[in-house]
Amino acid sequence: MRYDTVELIRAKRDGRVLTDDEIRWLIAAYTAGEIADEQMSALLMAVYFQGMEPGELRAWTAAKVRSGQRLDLSAVPAPTVDKHSTGGVGDKVSLVLAPLVASCGAAVPQLSGRGLGHTGGTLDKLESIPGWRADLTTAEMIEVLRATGCVICAAGPGLAPADRRLYHLRDVTGTVESIPLIASSIMSKKIAEGTAGLVLDVKVGSGAFMPDVQTAALLAQTMVALGAEAGVRTSALLTNMDAPLGRAVGNAVEVEEAVATLRGQGPPDLVEVTLALAREMLALAGLQADPAAALADGRALDRYRSMIAAQGGDPDAPLPAARHADVVTAAQAGWLRRLDARAVGVAAWRLGAGRARKEDPVSAVAGVLCLAKPGEQVEAGQPVLELRSDDQSRFARARAALADAIEIGPDPPAARPLVIERISGW
Amino acid sequence: MRYDTVELIRAKRDGRVLTDDEIRWLIAAYTAGEIADEQMSALLMAVYFQGMEPGELRAWTAAKVRSGQRLDLSAVPAPTVDKHSTGGVGDKVSLVLAPLVASCGAAVPQLSGRGLGHTGGTLDKLESIPGWRADLTTAEMIEVLRATGCVICAAGPGLAPADRRLYHLRDVTGTVESIPLIASSIMSKKIAEGTAGLVLDVKVGSGAFMPDVQTAALLAQTMVALGAEAGVRTSALLTNMDAPLGRAVGNAVEVEEAVATLRGQGPPDLVEVTLALAREMLALAGLQADPAAALADGRALDRYRSMIAAQGGDPDAPLPAARHADVVTAAQAGWLRRLDARAVGVAAWRLGAGRARKEDPVSAVAGVLCLAKPGEQVEAGQPVLELRSDDQSRFARARAALADAIEIGPDPPAARPLVIERISGW
Repeated sequence: MRYDTVELIRAKRDGRVLTDDEIRWLIAAYTAGEIADEQMSALLMAVYFQGMEPGELRAWTAAKVRSGQRLDLSAVPAPTVDKHSTGGVGDKVSLVLAPLVASCGAAVPQLSGRGLGHTGGTLDKLESIPGWRADLTTAEMIEVLRATGCVICAAGPGLAPADRRLYHLRDVTGTVESIPLIASSIMSKKIAEGTAGLVLDVKVGSGAFMPDVQTAALLAQTMVALGAEAGVRTSALLTNMDAPLGRAVGNAVEVEEAVATLRGQGPPDLVEVTLALAREMLALAGLQADPAAALADGRALDRYRSMIAAQGGDPDAPLPAARHADVVTAAQAGWLRRLDARAVGVAAWRLGAGRARKEDPVSAVAGVLCLAKPGEQVEAGQPVLELRSDDQSRFARARAALADAIEIGPDPPAARPLVIERISGW
Repeated sequence: MRYDTVELIRAKRDGRVLTDDEIRWLIAAYTAGEIADEQMSALLMAVYFQGMEPGELRAWTAAKVRSGQRLDLSAVPAPTVDKHSTGGVGDKVSLVLAPLVASCGAAVPQLSGRGLGHTGGTLDKLESIPGWRADLTTAEMIEVLRATGCVICAAGPGLAPADRRLYHLRDVTGTVESIPLIASSIMSKKIAEGTAGLVLDVKVGSGAFMPDVQTAALLAQTMVALGAEAGVRTSALLTNMDAPLGRAVGNAVEVEEAVATLRGQGPPDLVEVTLALAREMLALAGLQADPAAALADGRALDRYRSMIAAQGGDPDAPLPAARHADVVTAAQAGWLRRLDARAVGVAAWRLGAGRARKEDPVSAVAGVLCLAKPGEQVEAGQPVLELRSDDQSRFARARAALADAIEIGPDPPAARPLVIERISGW
């Protein structure tokens, strides 16, 4: 069956629910180049305004999965379970979590992305390790996964290629901020990855793409439903992203903090979120294990070292360090009430840790260290943030991003839970 | 000033009013190829949903006028006034109106379009006259206008070229049906044309793009305001398009009916609408004249013959005629209550009188004759419609379009005014 593209755009624009067949055709024709980018972007904007019914979204997601191959992980001799984060500041959870869960008996096939904007990317962080390779063939990826129980690498071009094109189109056409489109993009890649279980870390707060709990919960529910419909056991945790996670924001500095965490010396917030996600993953994998013990006794660190080495990295090599540093101090004494995650993320980005466009390089050494965190007391003049870069000329614009990032007051901030809500289809 | 295209798309999407400067930049950058079609179509879909404030629409329209030349008609020794119709079935008004108003002392610079879909195009109709040329240079156009007081020709590529590109983009991206975008497209071309006065014939009813009076009135008000802001004296008549205007629908058959009307033998509905528009145009031009007299005494016909000849046509040449005819008869006796304009337009289109795509040719001879009109009584078996085509295989699909087009009942239909409403900024 061949449809009229303009008729389908108008139908969606006018609020009609598209049929499975129509949606399958749209994705297939777009992938085949029969639908022009200007038609698809108009359709995406119509979806932005009209939303998608659950049935439409299921068909839309399945069609994207079908546009490429769905990985077969049956050769992996352990239950597979993955984690996806919607993106935060200082979010190095994957670096700790993948080897930790692997050390508890699961296999973690983590296909990751690079950073864009103020949130960092897992691959960018790991690439600060000398020799480490993000680009593996499917055979290499499965081999690392079999050998070490975990792998963190780039998604190959054969994985949901329709989503890749749509994602790029949304990026340049102002159609990113749509719950169904975000949910479908994430889930099409994760379903295609072939994992049996999936935990979503949906970040909420100033440093996250989802500003409020209600929107984040809706996104989480949408993704959990899509996972269930595709046979992937999926659950979600909503976690707080008002302040950076841990103390390090950047690339090499985050790897250092992740390794410290694997040595049992991690910052409490990072440890808490990582363990909550690990427990969720192990439950989905049907494994009884105590991740806190695996973190404490070095088993997780061993797995991390094996994984890095299996991907060409030297876990003992010293990480690169920035040539210059600059310090932001407390303007007054008191309780640090707020350290704005988004502002810190933008500062790290401006220092060179992130990219504005896909093709930009990132600096391994640039970043921000949070020397104080909300809930701690500071003296006037005490360093709160340390900015790092090889390029001194970047400090001024980074500091400008931090103008309103720090709030100090006479009273401690209200306690806010790190794990806000759990949403599960299981 | 350079703006970020994605930021502007998101701003419009989120309901922010764009500034004059932003809109000027958008149109200029799109014309210069700095904004991609997929970005502009997303913006157009956002406009579809969010609308445009009067100030935005003024800037959007002015920017399109400025993308090309605005014609200088100062060499024309009479007040200029034009008419634009939003498109109807059997709408050959321009063919009669332009020479009629010219014969009363005004100059009518009618830049017209071709038909698309179920409504015909003035140029397509006139091209059934042997030798007649639609494509004139600007100098030729002004010369015909000076010599005969009227000209009907194609708009050159230099006239609001940004609108030309946007119109094509809207056509393939499901963003045609937007009041501000329709109003701006029409008015940018008419403002660029350089006319001092403009009467809009906004068609309402089953055969028109505007289905109801309220929407049509909003479109008319929007266009009248845009004209006033650009210094063009503009008014609008809302006229009925539930049934075809006159009896002929097609190309050569409409030219024949137009000439009959210029001879004083026109169908009453066509004469009434034409005279109402003529009076409106003459008022805008500040001329005291009686168009009914000019129609009756042959002055208008003389002008028509001069105009056709000045554009290479032979007003005495016989028009081509179709080789085949087919008749649709009344299923019962009674009053003809309804003859659906849209269905008749679609039938004429399927017979070959119209085109599905811009590049399609049209048949000069194809069309439909309405042998009976609403308000007339018919006998069972009496011919109501005569279909004409050179291609007999087209009759079946044309008849299918007419399945529900004819309604016959025991009572006459309620009288509906042809001229529904007048909207003027003057």
